[in-house]
Amino acid sequence: MAGIGIVETKYVKFKEPLKLQSGKILPELEIAYETYGTLNENKDNALLVLHALTGDAHIAGKHSEEDRKVGWWDEMVGPDCAFDTNKFFVICSNCLGGCSGTTGPGSINPETGEPYGLDFPVITIEDMVEVQKKLVDYLGVKKVIVIGGSMGGMQALEWSVRFPDITKSVVVIASTSKLSAQAIGFNAVGRNAILNDENFAGGNYYGKKLPEKGLSIARMVGHITYLCEGAMHKKFGREFKDGPSFDFGVDFQVESYLDYQGRIFVDRFDANSYLYITKAVDYYDLGQKYGSLDKAFENAKAKFLLMSFTSDWLFPTEQTKEMLSALIKAKKDVSFVELESGAGHDAFLLETKNQTKILKSFLAN
Amino acid sequence: MAGIGIVETKYVKFKEPLKLQSGKILPELEIAYETYGTLNENKDNALLVLHALTGDAHIAGKHSEEDRKVGWWDEMVGPDCAFDTNKFFVICSNCLGGCSGTTGPGSINPETGEPYGLDFPVITIEDMVEVQKKLVDYLGVKKVIVIGGSMGGMQALEWSVRFPDITKSVVVIASTSKLSAQAIGFNAVGRNAILNDENFAGGNYYGKKLPEKGLSIARMVGHITYLCEGAMHKKFGREFKDGPSFDFGVDFQVESYLDYQGRIFVDRFDANSYLYITKAVDYYDLGQKYGSLDKAFENAKAKFLLMSFTSDWLFPTEQTKEMLSALIKAKKDVSFVELESGAGHDAFLLETKNQTKILKSFLAN
Repeated sequence: MAGIGIVETKYVKFKEPLKLQSGKILPELEIAYETYGTLNENKDNALLVLHALTGDAHIAGKHSEEDRKVGWWDEMVGPDCAFDTNKFFVICSNCLGGCSGTTGPGSINPETGEPYGLDFPVITIEDMVEVQKKLVDYLGVKKVIVIGGSMGGMQALEWSVRFPDITKSVVVIASTSKLSAQAIGFNAVGRNAILNDENFAGGNYYGKKLPEKGLSIARMVGHITYLCEGAMHKKFGREFKDGPSFDFGVDFQVESYLDYQGRIFVDRFDANSYLYITKAVDYYDLGQKYGSLDKAFENAKAKFLLMSFTSDWLFPTEQTKEMLSALIKAKKDVSFVELESGAGHDAFLLETKNQTKILKSFLAN
Repeated sequence: MAGIGIVETKYVKFKEPLKLQSGKILPELEIAYETYGTLNENKDNALLVLHALTGDAHIAGKHSEEDRKVGWWDEMVGPDCAFDTNKFFVICSNCLGGCSGTTGPGSINPETGEPYGLDFPVITIEDMVEVQKKLVDYLGVKKVIVIGGSMGGMQALEWSVRFPDITKSVVVIASTSKLSAQAIGFNAVGRNAILNDENFAGGNYYGKKLPEKGLSIARMVGHITYLCEGAMHKKFGREFKDGPSFDFGVDFQVESYLDYQGRIFVDRFDANSYLYITKAVDYYDLGQKYGSLDKAFENAKAKFLLMSFTSDWLFPTEQTKEMLSALIKAKKDVSFVELESGAGHDAFLLETKNQTKILKSFLAN
């Protein structure tokens, strides 16, 4: 596949205040986004892709010829790809609270001229979706297909019930309508590691020493949950890096991998954003807001495609089946596929071939 | 059940140096232990119980009438209990590297007059077992039944191959012959949280501010792995403590539980011991030492009982079955029971009734 080539992250600023679910007001808003393909005359060929916990707007292509890395879901976007840029106007934006261009805790608080830090209001998945809607409106889109994996899947669900008239289709991949107690527990561990870092300084660490170790520990926990024991066994087993050290450095390959993932993460992610985004994910509970999940879906008008992966233990198939049952009960048009994969939760980023087949067929209708 | 009544932790000091697996020398050794019942004339009715990661010598009874808590496996020890004190001389000792009376990183280094801290040598499961053997010899025991859960089960395995002539029977509960990559990963996260605590001070925190937050985070991770999603769902679900806080304090009951478990743990456990003991557990790999697990068991003479629990995902039944296969291949006398339980890895501490039935029948032979 030729790839999408050189792309550019764009920014749009909204000067009017945004009322958040918590009741707090965000005085202004900037959204970082990328688009691929062209919006048609009817403005109904938009395909909004929603990223996972630590993703960004850069879904595909490179930012320059020298760029060594492509976007986070590169294989999915391009001519004849799952998100066919000959047919669709693909949009991806960094989520509210993020640290890749959209307003978040690292942004400048216009009231103080300093970064918000923990003065940034706590946000929710619903707030993120409201922000995405502003972007979609700004781009002049009239109808949209919404696709998200993991946290992005939660947002896709929210789109279906919050904006039923413009949401034509919804694809929810490796996701859930609510986190399990165990998943909340893992997020709490990650947040505690950040809050306990000696450089955290109540969140006011910008321009100073960053809470890198804490963020890195949070990422280590995350990575254990994104893989699965089978994948870790296959990748690392009990292999030593250099034999037993008889000290408390890195001994096993699995430690080396987690350590590396933690260390590279701090270069691209803000610890405060990690706090805000995991909290938003913890809070989300679509069924609870409406009394039940099938009631939540009552007003949805979209066609749904639900995908899960056999080895995903963070958002297991069981949780997708719960959504499936609710959608069937609510008499919605829904398809469900469980894909065989040994890659754990990360499968949605890796198993692009099988997903492409299914998505092409779903999006062809 | 009447219970075992008032018991006393005893201490024995060994002045001769102990050579460790790493090649390092421990200049002196103290062991904290408790005994219940009476050693018979043949000195062959001893039953050595080996504790898990953060356990101690105090398996049953109270230390005084005012003591509010009984030992960690109280229901298992006493007249007519699984470990019948009318028949058996029950021994339990704190493991090497621990912080409940046996020499560990918090003990005084005789060479400096200060606590060892990280000058304490890295120890292994094999070293712990050598120390247990010293105690058993000191008590005059000639034959022993060895029973352990979790980390204690690893030690029980080691007893069977290291001291085959005196080890009559071995019971391995909710354990493994080697940790999975995932379990090593979780331990690495816990150690990183401790090492990153601002009070850690290279392990020299004794008498100063303790690395409580780091140790507490390590314990939170531990507790997620000791339970299972089913147990967490049943215990906490997505219940809030007081409704959403819209800040980064404790929101959900599951967070409150983990937070509490973390906070009470720091009162009874030393962060350095946590480093040393998790490292020992990570290193243990019985099969690797002998080329294969069935070769490891070749010289064992004990009868084996292996028990696992359906919902234990830290040391899953699959790992017990691996030991079972190896024991069968090595033509050993082995029984295996998988017990139904929704309690996760913690089941071995909680499901005492079913274990009692099985242990009574096994120990009656």
